[in-house]
Amino acid sequence: MPDINFDHAAAAPVLDRARAAMQEFLEKEFGNPSSLHQSGERPRQALETARAQVAALVNARPEEIVFTASGSESNNLAVKGLALAQPDKGRHIVVSAIEHASVLESARALARLGFEVTEVPVDGTGTVRPEKLRAAIRPDTVLVSVMHANNEVGTIQNLMELTRTCCSHKVLFHSDGCAAVGRVPVDIAELGVDAYSFAAQSVYGPRGAAALCLRRGVRIRPLVDGGVQERNRRAGTENVAAVAGFGVAAEFCHAHINEWSRHMARLSRRILTELPERLKHVVLTGCQDHRLPGHASMCVEFVEGEAMLLFLDDEGIRAASGSSCTARNLKASHVLLAMGLPHALAQSSLMLTLGRDSTDSDVDYFLDKLPGIVERLRRMSPLYARFQRGEDPYQTRPGQVCEEHEHTTEEN
Amino acid sequence: MPDINFDHAAAAPVLDRARAAMQEFLEKEFGNPSSLHQSGERPRQALETARAQVAALVNARPEEIVFTASGSESNNLAVKGLALAQPDKGRHIVVSAIEHASVLESARALARLGFEVTEVPVDGTGTVRPEKLRAAIRPDTVLVSVMHANNEVGTIQNLMELTRTCCSHKVLFHSDGCAAVGRVPVDIAELGVDAYSFAAQSVYGPRGAAALCLRRGVRIRPLVDGGVQERNRRAGTENVAAVAGFGVAAEFCHAHINEWSRHMARLSRRILTELPERLKHVVLTGCQDHRLPGHASMCVEFVEGEAMLLFLDDEGIRAASGSSCTARNLKASHVLLAMGLPHALAQSSLMLTLGRDSTDSDVDYFLDKLPGIVERLRRMSPLYARFQRGEDPYQTRPGQVCEEHEHTTEEN
Repeated sequence: MPDINFDHAAAAPVLDRARAAMQEFLEKEFGNPSSLHQSGERPRQALETARAQVAALVNARPEEIVFTASGSESNNLAVKGLALAQPDKGRHIVVSAIEHASVLESARALARLGFEVTEVPVDGTGTVRPEKLRAAIRPDTVLVSVMHANNEVGTIQNLMELTRTCCSHKVLFHSDGCAAVGRVPVDIAELGVDAYSFAAQSVYGPRGAAALCLRRGVRIRPLVDGGVQERNRRAGTENVAAVAGFGVAAEFCHAHINEWSRHMARLSRRILTELPERLKHVVLTGCQDHRLPGHASMCVEFVEGEAMLLFLDDEGIRAASGSSCTARNLKASHVLLAMGLPHALAQSSLMLTLGRDSTDSDVDYFLDKLPGIVERLRRMSPLYARFQRGEDPYQTRPGQVCEEHEHTTEEN
Repeated sequence: MPDINFDHAAAAPVLDRARAAMQEFLEKEFGNPSSLHQSGERPRQALETARAQVAALVNARPEEIVFTASGSESNNLAVKGLALAQPDKGRHIVVSAIEHASVLESARALARLGFEVTEVPVDGTGTVRPEKLRAAIRPDTVLVSVMHANNEVGTIQNLMELTRTCCSHKVLFHSDGCAAVGRVPVDIAELGVDAYSFAAQSVYGPRGAAALCLRRGVRIRPLVDGGVQERNRRAGTENVAAVAGFGVAAEFCHAHINEWSRHMARLSRRILTELPERLKHVVLTGCQDHRLPGHASMCVEFVEGEAMLLFLDDEGIRAASGSSCTARNLKASHVLLAMGLPHALAQSSLMLTLGRDSTDSDVDYFLDKLPGIVERLRRMSPLYARFQRGEDPYQTRPGQVCEEHEHTTEEN
């Protein structure tokens, strides 16, 4: 039985070199970087080395990196911290409808504090159209948050076009890069973002470390208050071991990202072209032109995503049906619904996230196994039965594409 | 040259058994506990094992434990999360004047959102008097936060008396236990607290793991929004390795806390009684009757705390002058000032936090070295010169004991 990780988005193995870098600080150099005695010296150096390594990965300056404990924390810090730091400018923020839950729920938390939140719709490919963003921006808008690439459908946004709009309106732009980093080269200066989140896991670093990259001069309120660490932007004794591992992983990723990117793109392209040849009624999701290398997402009609995962697992293949952060809430993906997919189709989502170590034979094995699994599941599917009787299995009604509806949350 | 860690509050070595427990999840079992496939199974089990171990340490139920990344995060989650979860009851909170910065700054963050904050004063021993707390509570008070023991002066509060007051007024009570856990046995049911923060480092666990213990039925708003992890109370993929290490360390601490407590108390008692016999003009700080085992704090008159630390470091002794989270802001301790100490005296603070592995010979060595260091520093001290001329070195004025003044913050 093979052990194929096609769910790198949920969990990626930590690089040996990153784990080795952690050991020093788990064992011998356990000092506190804030200490005035010598035992703080080596940990302090390690933090600054890692800061430079992580900054280099996205073409930022070391002092622009704020270390946090997770991508979710970075997103919370960015959305809440940037919005709350501009009380004089206004209380309106804009997020895309397909953001990760940590951005959407941060926006909802702000709504409870009296902010207004506009969710910009996406088109059927999961792309935010610049004119939609422009229409959402108001004089009192203090922040726009649009992810670099979507974790569930792989669509890469045209960030440069979006940030240009924000820049001309003098509105801060945050982008969640958790899905993009480690799959494509990232240059935050070129992208023109003011804040950019990503996690160590995206580059095969350890859990417990992530970064918010914050352009020089951008003011922020801490999420975790109460200490002078991270230049007063995030309190709490630093997790030096995890951060050191993050640094080493970031450096390694930076050196190999072009190669990884090409390799993963080729493999995911194989899945996206070969699977529909072997299996009928597969609806590819996300943008097929601008998508993450190593990311394949689709709806496999008439079957439940969760059932596919369990059967794939039995064959030694790890896959997902959506975001890990919401995997256990059993709701249809808000991303797929925002793209206009019918609810029942959204339930049949399958998401494969390959890694730098994925191989052609992994892909062969997957392409070999999935059709049989789906066939078995379809035999038990009432939706499939309805389809075969010539009925509309999803009972779709016109107007389900939500692109034209803008949701403004005004909770209090 | 010895290497004596008398600054366990800043950094404690991770137990071998805790580090060993982490390895499995850093190496092989790197899965995501939220995953629906089998690779999530072992990490999920490990989380729940650790939850039970950590709960047992403080006599809580496993489901009452919310894992976070640091003691500061736990304090932020408690103060902000409990205050924001009761919008109908009111917008007034009470904290003691000697709380850790992560509690005080969380309170200030709430003040910016329109909350009123009352800081309850402490007496000269750093103790919150129940009548002062009672006087601070109002009908719109939603939360009281008083630490179990103070990290800088070692004073243990009479929490049971304070929580009884809050309970009779139906006000939630949070206590920061970061300094207490690992030094005294803790039973949160007996203490009567609704929420209790502590960190893995307090029990020789790794950085990157901490807990907020939240009594059943107490509602809270997440600090990190956006995922179903930790029963919707803290989003973000769990740092399974760190949490597993925390669990093992908590279990070990639970089994040994009485023995550790006795051992550390005896050693710190030696410092507190023997040092003043060898060195003149030492003012012990904190309560001498109710204080943390292994904690010795004092002001060494006429010398700068920082200078003592550097000279002690040269002799192989790690010590501190106050909280690590504010060690680098170079201000006099707010704790000592709140206890009524003159500013210049507060600058001469020395804080020693021993550990389970500290020895009598460590104490002997310290008692042998400090007097010589202080003598050298006093020879260079203008304060000491003034004292020797018979002048008041601190130019104290009456009324500096701030016990009678209650600070109400009404920032907006």
